[in-house]
Amino acid sequence: MEDKKLHAVLDHLTLQEKIGQLIQLPGNFFDVHTATTGPEKKLGIDAAVVDMCGSVLNVAGAEKTRRVQDQHLKKNKIPLLFMSDIVYGFKTIYPIPLGLGATWDPELIEKDYQNTADEAKASGNQVAFAPMVDLVRDARWGRVLESTGEDPLLNSQYASAMVRGFQHNFDAKHGIAACVKHFAAYGAVESGKEYNSVDMSERELRQNYLPSYKAAVDAGTKLVMTAFNTMNGVPITGNKWLLKDILRDEWGFDGIIISDYAAVAELVNHGFVPTNHEATEQAFNATVDIDMKSPCYANELQPLLKEGRIDVQKIDEACWRVLKLKNEMGLFEDPYRGASVEAEKEQLITPKKRALARKTANEASVLLKNDGILPLSSDQKVALIGPYSNSQELIGLWAVHGDTKDVISIETAFNEKVDAGHLRSTLGTSLMAADDNYQGMGMSESQFKQAILSSDEQKKEDQKVAELSAWADVVVMPVGEHTVQSGEAGSRANINLPAQQVALIHRVAKSGKPIVLVTISGRPLVLSDVETDASAILQAWFPGTEGGHAIADIIFGKTNPSGRLSMGFPRSVGQLPQYYSHLSTGRSPLTSGHSSRYMSKYTDVKDGPLYPFGFGLSYHQAEYRNLTLSQDKMMADQTLQVSVELENSSAIAGTETVQLYLQDVFASVVQPVKVLKDYQRVTLKAYETKTIVFTITAEMLQFYGQQNQLTIEPGQFNVFVGNNSRDCMKTSFEFI
Amino acid sequence: MEDKKLHAVLDHLTLQEKIGQLIQLPGNFFDVHTATTGPEKKLGIDAAVVDMCGSVLNVAGAEKTRRVQDQHLKKNKIPLLFMSDIVYGFKTIYPIPLGLGATWDPELIEKDYQNTADEAKASGNQVAFAPMVDLVRDARWGRVLESTGEDPLLNSQYASAMVRGFQHNFDAKHGIAACVKHFAAYGAVESGKEYNSVDMSERELRQNYLPSYKAAVDAGTKLVMTAFNTMNGVPITGNKWLLKDILRDEWGFDGIIISDYAAVAELVNHGFVPTNHEATEQAFNATVDIDMKSPCYANELQPLLKEGRIDVQKIDEACWRVLKLKNEMGLFEDPYRGASVEAEKEQLITPKKRALARKTANEASVLLKNDGILPLSSDQKVALIGPYSNSQELIGLWAVHGDTKDVISIETAFNEKVDAGHLRSTLGTSLMAADDNYQGMGMSESQFKQAILSSDEQKKEDQKVAELSAWADVVVMPVGEHTVQSGEAGSRANINLPAQQVALIHRVAKSGKPIVLVTISGRPLVLSDVETDASAILQAWFPGTEGGHAIADIIFGKTNPSGRLSMGFPRSVGQLPQYYSHLSTGRSPLTSGHSSRYMSKYTDVKDGPLYPFGFGLSYHQAEYRNLTLSQDKMMADQTLQVSVELENSSAIAGTETVQLYLQDVFASVVQPVKVLKDYQRVTLKAYETKTIVFTITAEMLQFYGQQNQLTIEPGQFNVFVGNNSRDCMKTSFEFI
Repeated sequence: MEDKKLHAVLDHLTLQEKIGQLIQLPGNFFDVHTATTGPEKKLGIDAAVVDMCGSVLNVAGAEKTRRVQDQHLKKNKIPLLFMSDIVYGFKTIYPIPLGLGATWDPELIEKDYQNTADEAKASGNQVAFAPMVDLVRDARWGRVLESTGEDPLLNSQYASAMVRGFQHNFDAKHGIAACVKHFAAYGAVESGKEYNSVDMSERELRQNYLPSYKAAVDAGTKLVMTAFNTMNGVPITGNKWLLKDILRDEWGFDGIIISDYAAVAELVNHGFVPTNHEATEQAFNATVDIDMKSPCYANELQPLLKEGRIDVQKIDEACWRVLKLKNEMGLFEDPYRGASVEAEKEQLITPKKRALARKTANEASVLLKNDGILPLSSDQKVALIGPYSNSQELIGLWAVHGDTKDVISIETAFNEKVDAGHLRSTLGTSLMAADDNYQGMGMSESQFKQAILSSDEQKKEDQKVAELSAWADVVVMPVGEHTVQSGEAGSRANINLPAQQVALIHRVAKSGKPIVLVTISGRPLVLSDVETDASAILQAWFPGTEGGHAIADIIFGKTNPSGRLSMGFPRSVGQLPQYYSHLSTGRSPLTSGHSSRYMSKYTDVKDGPLYPFGFGLSYHQAEYRNLTLSQDKMMADQTLQVSVELENSSAIAGTETVQLYLQDVFASVVQPVKVLKDYQRVTLKAYETKTIVFTITAEMLQFYGQQNQLTIEPGQFNVFVGNNSRDCMKTSFEFI
Repeated sequence: MEDKKLHAVLDHLTLQEKIGQLIQLPGNFFDVHTATTGPEKKLGIDAAVVDMCGSVLNVAGAEKTRRVQDQHLKKNKIPLLFMSDIVYGFKTIYPIPLGLGATWDPELIEKDYQNTADEAKASGNQVAFAPMVDLVRDARWGRVLESTGEDPLLNSQYASAMVRGFQHNFDAKHGIAACVKHFAAYGAVESGKEYNSVDMSERELRQNYLPSYKAAVDAGTKLVMTAFNTMNGVPITGNKWLLKDILRDEWGFDGIIISDYAAVAELVNHGFVPTNHEATEQAFNATVDIDMKSPCYANELQPLLKEGRIDVQKIDEACWRVLKLKNEMGLFEDPYRGASVEAEKEQLITPKKRALARKTANEASVLLKNDGILPLSSDQKVALIGPYSNSQELIGLWAVHGDTKDVISIETAFNEKVDAGHLRSTLGTSLMAADDNYQGMGMSESQFKQAILSSDEQKKEDQKVAELSAWADVVVMPVGEHTVQSGEAGSRANINLPAQQVALIHRVAKSGKPIVLVTISGRPLVLSDVETDASAILQAWFPGTEGGHAIADIIFGKTNPSGRLSMGFPRSVGQLPQYYSHLSTGRSPLTSGHSSRYMSKYTDVKDGPLYPFGFGLSYHQAEYRNLTLSQDKMMADQTLQVSVELENSSAIAGTETVQLYLQDVFASVVQPVKVLKDYQRVTLKAYETKTIVFTITAEMLQFYGQQNQLTIEPGQFNVFVGNNSRDCMKTSFEFI
C-alpha cells in the first residue's frame, strides 16, 4: 500500500499494538500451550504479548510459517515477519563464511545469497540474520566461522555482495531482507573468548572494524543487529554513540536496528543498568527498534513512557520502520509472501542450486601444501582414514535450517572418482576425545557417545588403519573439529587438531605411505604438529551440502584449486591475535638494526603465520614478473597504473588471484606493514601470459589520522603485488 | 650551588654544549679508541659528541666511573651523570619485581631500594632506570619479570615505595634518582609480543595503565623514561599527547624525560617519520629531554633550530633540567658523589644487605600447592633433582650489575638444613632443550652448550634420577625457565615448563615418591601439566642473591610462607591476556541464565586462572568470618567500616594478607567484577583471633566515566574480603 495508507494503519494502532511490533519471540511461543506453563511465564511476559508481537525468530517451512501466520492474523491485523539465522545457505548449505571468504569471488557469493533468498522465501522467511561481517584476528573465537576474515576490504566487498544477493530486485515478490551483524567489533572480543569485552581506540574502530558494516549499510541492508559485547565499557545494545551518532546520524541508516538474542535484558547482566526498566530505556534511546527475545520492551516501554523517560514519537518512529518493511514486502497483501509447499518443491536444493554450492565449495577450499602428490588419479589405491571419511556432518554449527541428510560425504564422492576396488575407508579414530567437556559445548551424553569410540572400537580401528595403510598407494585423511567445537560459544584455548587425531596422523605417517590431509574446521587450526607428516593439505572448512563432491573434485584434479585464505593460520595459539596488516614496530625482525634477541618476536616460534593471509596453492604454476608503475610520482588528482606480467608456466589452466597491497611508509599515525587495496581473479590457459593492470587511486592512500579524521599525507608508498600477503614483488612511488 | 649560579653556568654554555647535555651514550663510547674504528662511527656521530655528552649508560664500579669522569672533566666542565639499569638490586640482587609484587609489603620494598641506592652510589651510579611499573596482563611478554603485576593499586604502591627508596633523603650526598618507566602502557603490547603495538581506549588507559606512573611522579621521581611501543598508532617517544599534555601539563612533571634505548631513532623504523631529522623534531617537541643512544639529537637539533622547527628556549629548558639534577646531586662539588673503592667495600653485599635480600626472597616466594608434605624436617632423606638444583643462575636477566658468583644455590642452602647424609642432588635434565632457538634468545653457541646435556650425559642423569628417587623420602625438584627465556625480548608463545623438564617430573612422579616442585621463572608459567604430579609447588621466581637460603627457609619451615601472587597463573596460554579485574559480560558463567554452551568461556579449558591474583598458601590456617559493614548505606561525605574476624586455627604463627575488593555493580561504564581497594598484612600468633577493619572511602568508588572524567555513581556496591581474588566473603552496601 501507499505510505499514506500505511500511516493510517499506524495511527489506528493502540500503544500496546505499536509496542508489539517492536518485540520478537522465538517459534516456541507460537506453539499451542497455556500461559501458565508456556515460555511466556519463563520469560516473564504476559501471554497477550505473543498476540501483539511483530516478528518471529527461526521458524521455517511453508506449512509451519503459514499456520503460525494464520493463527496470528486471527488476533492481529498486522502480519508477522519471519526472521531466521540464514547465514550461509537455507536448505542448500554453502561453505561457512570463512570458506566463502577464501573464494575472493564476491560475484559468486552474491549468486549464492540470491539462491538462498529464493529458498528462504519459499519456506516463509523474509529476513536473514546475515551477513555477519565482524572483522576477525583471533582464531580462538568460535564465530570466526561466520566471518569472511581478517581484511576490511574483502569483508566489505563480501558484505555488499551478500546484501545484494539477499535483496536482489527487492520488492513485494522478490528477495528477502538482510540484517547485517553484529554491529560493532564483536570480532575483537578479548582473548578470543566468546561474549568477552572489547576495548579499542576510536581510530582502530573506524580504520579496520567499521568499514564492513558501512559497506552493508551502503548496499542497502534493511536491518542491523547489535553485538553482544561492550565497547570501551558500554554494551553495544545500549551504546548511543555507536547506534545513534554513528550508524543513524553519520551513516544515515534509517532501517531497523534489532538487538541480538536477549541482549536488551543482558544489559543488566553486563552491570550497565540495575533493572530491565533501565535496560529498556538505554536500548530504546540508543534507537534499538526491536527487542529480540527479552521481556524488556514488552513490560517496560509503557511505564517509561508514563515517566516521560522515553518519547512517544520515538515509539511511532520505531513502529513505522517495522511496518514500512512489512509493507515493502507486500505482507499486507500476501502475508505468506508466496511461501507454499509447491514453492518449496520448486526452490529447495534443486540440482542447479547444488551445482552452485559445489562450485562455491570448490572455490572455497584452500590447498595449503602439495609436494606434487595431488591431484590423484583414479587408478591409485586410496585409503580414506579419518573421522570425517564417511560423515555427512559437513555443514557446521550455524546452518540452522540445513539438513545433514542432504550432504554428500567424502566417501560417497570419492566412489564416483576412483576405479572399482580402489577405495577403502575407515574412521581411524573419533572426532572428539573421551575427556572432552561435552556439556560445556552443549552436547547431550548420547550425542557425545556418537562422537567418541569405545576402547574396543578403537582397537579395531587401529588394526584397520594398519591394514589400509599397508594396502594403499596414498592415504587421504579427513580430520578436523567436531561441529560443536566452533561457531557461537565455540571458543577454544587450544586450536590444534584434537590430540587423538594428531596421534592417528603420526601413526599413519610411520607407515611411510604419503598422506593427504583434508581438514574440516570452523577456524584456522594450528597445523604445525602435523604439517610435516603430510604430502598435501587441503583446508576444506565446513564445506556444506556439496562438500564431498568439491573435495573429490580437487583431490582428483577435476578442478584446479583456487582458494586463498582470508584469515591467516598461526603457527601456535600463543601468537594470537595475529594478522597480516599489523603496524610497523620500532624493531621489526625484518628491518631492525638490532642484534637477533632485541626484536619484536617470540623466542620460541618463528615470526608470522604458518600460512599467511592470501595464501593458497593451485595445480598450475604462475610466475610474476615486471612489476611496473606508470609513474613514480602521484598527485591527489591523479591515478597510477600498476602492471605485472603473469605467466602460466604449466600445462594446467588455472585461476590466479593477483593481490595488490600498499604501505604508507611514513605517516603521522603509524600504518600497517601492508594493506590489501585491490585484487583480480585471473584465469590463465596453459602456458598463457597475461599482463594485469591495477589502478591506484588517492582514496586508497587515505587513513584515519590523529584526530580520527580521514586524511592523506604526502610521502613514500610501497607497492606489493603477489599471490599472498607474504611473498610479493615490491616497488614504490611518491605521493606529492 | 644556588640556582642563580647554575643559571650562569647554563648561560655560559655554547649551543653545542647544551645539546651535549641532552645526549646519553653507553660505556663503550668512553673506552679508549679512535674515532674511525669506534662506536661513534657505527652510530653515525662525530667523535666530539662524546666529549660534549651529558650522561653515560650502564657503566658501574667506583674505579671505572671515576676514571671515566676524570677523563671527561679534562674536556668538559659539566660532570657526567651515570645512569644504569638498576631494576631489582645493584650488587645484592633481590627477587625480580614480579616476586617483589608478591610480597604485598611496600615498606620492605622501600628498604630494598634504599639499600640498592647505597650500593649504586658507592659504585658511582646516580640514576636508576627503575621502577618499571608497567601493568601486565599477559604472561607471554618477557618483561612481566620487571613488573610488579596486574593490579593498578599494588603497582602504584610499589612505584611510590621504589621511588622513595631510591630517593631517600635525596640531596648532594644521599640517595640516587629514580627514573620511572616505561611511560606508558608498554605492558599492553599486543599478543604479549615484545615491542608490539598497543591500542586502547583513553578510558582504559586512564583507569588501569596510568595510575602507577602517576604514583611515581607524585612520589617525586626525578626522571621518566618513554616506552618503545606505539599508542593507538603514535609511538610514545613522539607522542605529544602523552608526554606533554598528560605527563607535563596535567600531572605537572618537570623532571627529565629520557627516551628508551635508541627509541628516538626508532621513530623512523616505526614508520612515524622518514628521517632522523623529523624523529628529533617529534621527540624534542614532545618534550623528550635526553636522547639515549641514538644519533638524533647530536646531529639534528642544530639544523632544526636553524630551520625554526624547534625553539632555542626549549633547548635551554631541557638542558636546565639536566643541570638542575646534577646540581641537586652535588656533582659540581664532588663529581664522583662519594663513589670510591672504600665506599664499595663498606656498602656492597654486606651481611646486613644479604639478610634483607633473604627476608625479601622469603616474602616473595609463593606456595601454590601443599598437600601437607611441607615443611620438611631435617631428618628426611631429600633428593634434589632438577636443573636448578645446584645453580647460581638465580638472578634473572635484568640484574645488569649483579654477579651470579655471589648467589647462594639451593643445594648449598639445603646442606645447611638437613642432617648429614640426608641430601643427594642431580640435574635430572637440562634447563633448555636441544632444539631451542638459542640465537633468537641472544645466546652464543658455547653458552647454549652449557644449558643442554649430551645424550650420554642425559643417560647418566636418567640412572641417577632412578637411583635418587628410590633412595629419597621426598624429591625436591628445582625446575624452570633459563634466564634468557624471560626479560626484555624474552616473549614466549608457549609458557609451559620446558618439555624435557615436564618429562622429568612425570618420570619422578612414577617412582611414587612425593614431589615438591620449586619453580624458577620470570613469569607465571602454565603448570597445568605438572600440577597433579606435585605434592607441593613453591613459586620462587628468580629469587636473587639469597635465593637458595630463602627457598630452604620455607621448605624446611624456618619461615612460614606469606607471598601472594600479584599476577594470576593461567591454565593455558590460550587464555591470555587474562586478569582478575575483567569486566562483567552479558553471559558470565557464574550469573548467566543461559544453558551451559552459550556463556563467556572457552569450551576446552575451565574458566579463570589456575592460581588467581592474590593467591598463596601458608603453613598456618586462617579462618575468615563475620564480615560486617558499619552501615548498609553510605553518602559521599561518609566513610564505611568493613570488619572481618580472622582466626588462626593452627599452632603455627603466620602472616595473613587480608584483601578488600569492591565491585560497582551497575555503572554507566561497565565496571570490573572485582577491584582491589585495600589490604592488610596481619601477623597472627598460634590460635590467635583478630578483628581487621578497613575503611571504605568515596574515592574508592570512583571510575572514569563515558567522557573519561573521574566520576562516582549511586547504587549497589559489592564488598569482597578474602585471602585471594577468587575466594572471598561477600556483602554489599548502597551508595546514595
